[in-house]
Amino acid sequence: MRITQRVKRILANYESDCPGTKTNLARILMHGRLGGTGKMVILPVDQGFEHGPDRSFAPNPPAYDPHYHYQLAIDAGLNAYAAPLGMLEAGADSFAGAIPTILKLNSSDSHATVKDQAVYGSVQDALRLGCSAIGFTIYPGADDQFEMMEEFRELSEEAKAVGLAVVLWSYPRGGDLSKAGETAVDVTAYAAHLAALLGAHIIKVKPPTDHVEQDEAKKALEKAKVDLSTLEKRIAHVMQSAFAGRRIVVFSGGAAKGTEGVLEEIRQIAAGGANGSIIGRNSFQRSREDALALLDTIVKIYQGKA
Amino acid sequence: MRITQRVKRILANYESDCPGTKTNLARILMHGRLGGTGKMVILPVDQGFEHGPDRSFAPNPPAYDPHYHYQLAIDAGLNAYAAPLGMLEAGADSFAGAIPTILKLNSSDSHATVKDQAVYGSVQDALRLGCSAIGFTIYPGADDQFEMMEEFRELSEEAKAVGLAVVLWSYPRGGDLSKAGETAVDVTAYAAHLAALLGAHIIKVKPPTDHVEQDEAKKALEKAKVDLSTLEKRIAHVMQSAFAGRRIVVFSGGAAKGTEGVLEEIRQIAAGGANGSIIGRNSFQRSREDALALLDTIVKIYQGKA
Amino acid sequence: MRITQRVKRILANYESDCPGTKTNLARILMHGRLGGTGKMVILPVDQGFEHGPDRSFAPNPPAYDPHYHYQLAIDAGLNAYAAPLGMLEAGADSFAGAIPTILKLNSSDSHATVKDQAVYGSVQDALRLGCSAIGFTIYPGADDQFEMMEEFRELSEEAKAVGLAVVLWSYPRGGDLSKAGETAVDVTAYAAHLAALLGAHIIKVKPPTDHVEQDEAKKALEKAKVDLSTLEKRIAHVMQSAFAGRRIVVFSGGAAKGTEGVLEEIRQIAAGGANGSIIGRNSFQRSREDALALLDTIVKIYQGKA
Amino acid sequence: MRITQRVKRILANYESDCPGTKTNLARILMHGRLGGTGKMVILPVDQGFEHGPDRSFAPNPPAYDPHYHYQLAIDAGLNAYAAPLGMLEAGADSFAGAIPTILKLNSSDSHATVKDQAVYGSVQDALRLGCSAIGFTIYPGADDQFEMMEEFRELSEEAKAVGLAVVLWSYPRGGDLSKAGETAVDVTAYAAHLAALLGAHIIKVKPPTDHVEQDEAKKALEKAKVDLSTLEKRIAHVMQSAFAGRRIVVFSGGAAKGTEGVLEEIRQIAAGGANGSIIGRNSFQRSREDALALLDTIVKIYQGKA
Amino acid sequence: MRITQRVKRILANYESDCPGTKTNLARILMHGRLGGTGKMVILPVDQGFEHGPDRSFAPNPPAYDPHYHYQLAIDAGLNAYAAPLGMLEAGADSFAGAIPTILKLNSSDSHATVKDQAVYGSVQDALRLGCSAIGFTIYPGADDQFEMMEEFRELSEEAKAVGLAVVLWSYPRGGDLSKAGETAVDVTAYAAHLAALLGAHIIKVKPPTDHVEQDEAKKALEKAKVDLSTLEKRIAHVMQSAFAGRRIVVFSGGAAKGTEGVLEEIRQIAAGGANGSIIGRNSFQRSREDALALLDTIVKIYQGKA
Repeated sequence: MRITQRVKRILANYESDCPGTKTNLARILMHGRLGGTGKMVILPVDQGFEHGPDRSFAPNPPAYDPHYHYQLAIDAGLNAYAAPLGMLEAGADSFAGAIPTILKLNSSDSHATVKDQAVYGSVQDALRLGCSAIGFTIYPGADDQFEMMEEFRELSEEAKAVGLAVVLWSYPRGGDLSKAGETAVDVTAYAAHLAALLGAHIIKVKPPTDHVEQDEAKKALEKAKVDLSTLEKRIAHVMQSAFAGRRIVVFSGGAAKGTEGVLEEIRQIAAGGANGSIIGRNSFQRSREDALALLDTIVKIYQGKA
Repeated sequence: MRITQRVKRILANYESDCPGTKTNLARILMHGRLGGTGKMVILPVDQGFEHGPDRSFAPNPPAYDPHYHYQLAIDAGLNAYAAPLGMLEAGADSFAGAIPTILKLNSSDSHATVKDQAVYGSVQDALRLGCSAIGFTIYPGADDQFEMMEEFRELSEEAKAVGLAVVLWSYPRGGDLSKAGETAVDVTAYAAHLAALLGAHIIKVKPPTDHVEQDEAKKALEKAKVDLSTLEKRIAHVMQSAFAGRRIVVFSGGAAKGTEGVLEEIRQIAAGGANGSIIGRNSFQRSREDALALLDTIVKIYQGKA
Repeated sequence: MRITQRVKRILANYESDCPGTKTNLARILMHGRLGGTGKMVILPVDQGFEHGPDRSFAPNPPAYDPHYHYQLAIDAGLNAYAAPLGMLEAGADSFAGAIPTILKLNSSDSHATVKDQAVYGSVQDALRLGCSAIGFTIYPGADDQFEMMEEFRELSEEAKAVGLAVVLWSYPRGGDLSKAGETAVDVTAYAAHLAALLGAHIIKVKPPTDHVEQDEAKKALEKAKVDLSTLEKRIAHVMQSAFAGRRIVVFSGGAAKGTEGVLEEIRQIAAGGANGSIIGRNSFQRSREDALALLDTIVKIYQGKA
Repeated sequence: MRITQRVKRILANYESDCPGTKTNLARILMHGRLGGTGKMVILPVDQGFEHGPDRSFAPNPPAYDPHYHYQLAIDAGLNAYAAPLGMLEAGADSFAGAIPTILKLNSSDSHATVKDQAVYGSVQDALRLGCSAIGFTIYPGADDQFEMMEEFRELSEEAKAVGLAVVLWSYPRGGDLSKAGETAVDVTAYAAHLAALLGAHIIKVKPPTDHVEQDEAKKALEKAKVDLSTLEKRIAHVMQSAFAGRRIVVFSGGAAKGTEGVLEEIRQIAAGGANGSIIGRNSFQRSREDALALLDTIVKIYQGKA
Repeated sequence: MRITQRVKRILANYESDCPGTKTNLARILMHGRLGGTGKMVILPVDQGFEHGPDRSFAPNPPAYDPHYHYQLAIDAGLNAYAAPLGMLEAGADSFAGAIPTILKLNSSDSHATVKDQAVYGSVQDALRLGCSAIGFTIYPGADDQFEMMEEFRELSEEAKAVGLAVVLWSYPRGGDLSKAGETAVDVTAYAAHLAALLGAHIIKVKPPTDHVEQDEAKKALEKAKVDLSTLEKRIAHVMQSAFAGRRIVVFSGGAAKGTEGVLEEIRQIAAGGANGSIIGRNSFQRSREDALALLDTIVKIYQGKA
């Protein structure tokens, strides 16, 4: 594996990290069909925890089997596969070494009465399962946001000390945020910035809408005449908010939508300079054949071929 | 670096601290254009966390890049640069040894529904990033004030044991305090005194207004005929409240305002005997050229040359 | 320092304590002009935290300097000086060995919206600062009283294990207590008894009024025909409640009042058999000259000479 | 206890120590008839362990009782009493607070087949027994010298962290040292210097003879024309070797000898600038009356009165 | 302190170190008259432990005082001062922040009957004393060499984790090594290489003679026609052995010799590409005036001016 210049430049941004962490970042960045390009597509499968198995897997019953997702990520030539404890425990041996994995350490479920998550995986789990990174979700804006950040800090510090990479899902919600505000462009930029400040290596946020939630942000953006009229421009704005591009940012696919809708969105995400996509429901809720076709196109978009 | 008599006298006030902590205080006091004068100007950049990237950096887009701030503090000849975890992680290697750094361990964000902060950095982080000090914020008056003080104590005790210095932002808010009360002269003096009692080495408070918030304090000040009619006199009063000058106190620039307003305020702060200023938004929200010009004048004010 | 028989008898009451703790109690009991008499006068200076620097020190500006209080306690020939972390840190080296010190580990401030305190000092702090004892406040009756008692227990147990003495400020307030009830004789006796039960070596309570707060206590006292008509008799009752005199109890001077008022109260406290007084505001809010004169008379009262 | 300027100057040499350790040094330096002079006489009673009870106490049977030695040290007005665990455990309560004590942590016995000692006391023991210092013996030159130094370091670091002082008995023996070499002036100066380098606060060595053991040292001393012809001059040389007088050095009385021999030796030790004497067998192997008379004269010698 | 390109290139060789360790390396590399050149001169004073105070300090009696050496290193404009625990404890407060210090953690003495050293300082000591690095000695070839290496590893790992730099004295001796072999060019190159392999940041070895000790090394060098005829070439060979110049190597001055001998040797050391010299006895055993003159010339040699 000869590390490309593009990947070396990305790794160089992680100035304070030990070579172990850089090695794990390199594993993700060099794996799959996008390996070496500085772009990445990740398959995340935590929707079973978040929404229950019926909403998640009934549309495509083979997806009830954890091995299905490992195999899908591998066959699609993706960079990494992210999942919670049980999902990885059920396949980590069969697929040992086959694809970089990310152990998602916390999740919420659809019964939740508070904006919080259960932490049910550990850094030690990540090591024994051969993962390249840990994953964690925070809810900026929620009443428990500071507790979530503090939980993240402890796990992140521990992970970095043993050479793992750290992926942070930064999903604003709760508190005074309106529903539209959760994906507002200012709030999304803020979420990406918070994740960078908290020390994340890879940041996951949602594609931002053109809504601006906070009055003061609105004033500042208008005064500075920041053009946020297209998704591409909003993506570029989020990348800038993540340390002027010094941190890897990937965007989720959001709610399941039609194939063309997904692809069009990703074309703009790629054009905006994002590092990639993290595509869950939009892939595994289709048949394996359709999912592979979709992921093939997405990979090609990031290769500049589609 | 021959330590000046003025700095030695300041260090001698930290009677119970180990030579390691004094060494780190000396590093800050001896660095930059004010090195050796006993005065200091510090660049703090935690506004991205507190107010979001748009409000913080849109006015001057190069400031989205963490390296920008390191370079600004160095080029302006400041004493130290203070920032949260991610900001320092993104530049600590490139700028190793170039300027003393202060790792800010906690922050709030503009979504917060409570007067509290997330603690997301550690003393171990400060050591591995080569920092000279840790920074922490408390909100005297807030419902969670005692918890914040207790969090501070633990981190402070740990920091002192490994030879780091401790900077405390003491910002009254919440509880029964009126908005005007947050910067009232009695409340500010109280905030500085609390920080000293909690064991801080360097105390950051806001410039006090002539408002007196607490009835009992008003009576005591009137009875003692304490003259608080000018900012200079109020600054002197705050310094007195910080152990009669035995603790270093620096004042923030407050909300961004016109250049002349900033400078006039700092002239009075300096005249009142403050140890210096900590200037964030007022510097990095201007163009680099304007910021360097402003900081140059501020440094000259503390040198007694402007 | 030849330990007097009177002090030996007092030490003998601390049957389960290690010789280290008795050594530190002996240091306090043998120090100053009352050394060896079994009586003690202590200077406490935590009012800056509790009420702010203006209310505390504006009446006598030299008192803004932490060294002032060390020197006052020494020059007045008192038994010990009690203060919070920062106050001791600012003078512990200059005055090392000059007077026994008590590190007050928790405090409240006048902004507080709850009846609670911040714990911001540690047993380790007490050891590194050369203190003979730790000090702690509980609020019997407050909603958080049990948490405060539990915090005390942990620190007390830790202190006893390393040979320190433990001083407990037992100040009823909050909950169902009326304002008058806070200093009612039954409530004060109860507070002293609780402190003894919690394992304190030295107990600080306020001089009790003749108000009786609790109905059941009233009935019992009346049935037993306990005479509580004078302060002297009430003091004797409180001493009895503190294990029939087996625990050292000292009384605060309360709110600043006229010299004669202070002295008359202390004469009765002494007559009632108290171990001594702990005099803060009433001493340091006067000029040094007046404070030394007042403390001289107080010491003489406990010597039986005034 | 008003700390004298002489004692303050001595304490100032312990630059890196916490106020707690300085407080304990001050306790020893301010106690007894020599309190405040910067001189000290210490009673050490570990001969029972080293030589057995018969050789140690048969000459003066009351000395079999541990209380005897506490009382002797107190009645003679000495600065401190040093003894092993059991000796202190047997009297620490009866004499709590009466005299500073030094817990000797290791000893050898007369059965020993190696030049080493058993470590049978702890820093925790010193705290629970109310000691002001720990004591330790090393044998520079012995085959096990480095292990002894490493044991010392661990205990010393622990003691300093909790505010205790550290006394080091530095007794060269074993290895290539001749019997005469054990008290040779070069070897004694070396022993004192090693103790200072190892971080001891108070150093105990034996009075040096005019023998020079090491060839290279002999050459250096002759070349520098160092006059070592009298005990006074040799003492001055040892003091110089202990950081040019920045460390307290006390000298043992050596083997029991006639009263005049002891006193004449101590006169020269005092004249050479030593900080004092540590007198075991020469005191407690006499009758109490004779011992008090002897110690009275020794104290007077250090007072410059005999 | 603007870090020079030359220093940045050196720091870049320490690829796996945290920014804290690089900060401390930068402090040493940027300090004093050679600051920024990539060259360094260090004053080490552990000869008192190694050879005793008489051999070390009798030639220049002011050197018995630990402050003398701090001041000498500062006045000569050196990069750092290295000394054992007691030496630093005796001056760390007076000279806090004035010059980077290196805490030497182990030493041998001239009584030693084995080729080993006592470890009597800790990483925690280095932090509380404000040191930039720890120092350690190993004896490659000695019977206890592996134990020494293992002790080093533990301390080194601990030091790196808290951001300290690590200096390793690599002095072959003992085992089958001939006396001449201890400074043989192959053995010295081996010693430097071992130090690099053990993870040292700064390596101290002795200037190599043209003796080749090991038969197999001799064959290899002859076969490769390595020219080792001059000291300059041998120094270049040692630098090459220390990771082809990727590790800082400094050379000791060896036994005290005439001024010209010292300077001539250092000219060749500098010409061979060494990073600098570590000069103990040759400096502090002269008068202060002569030492400053000598060190001035040495600094100029490394500046290319003498």
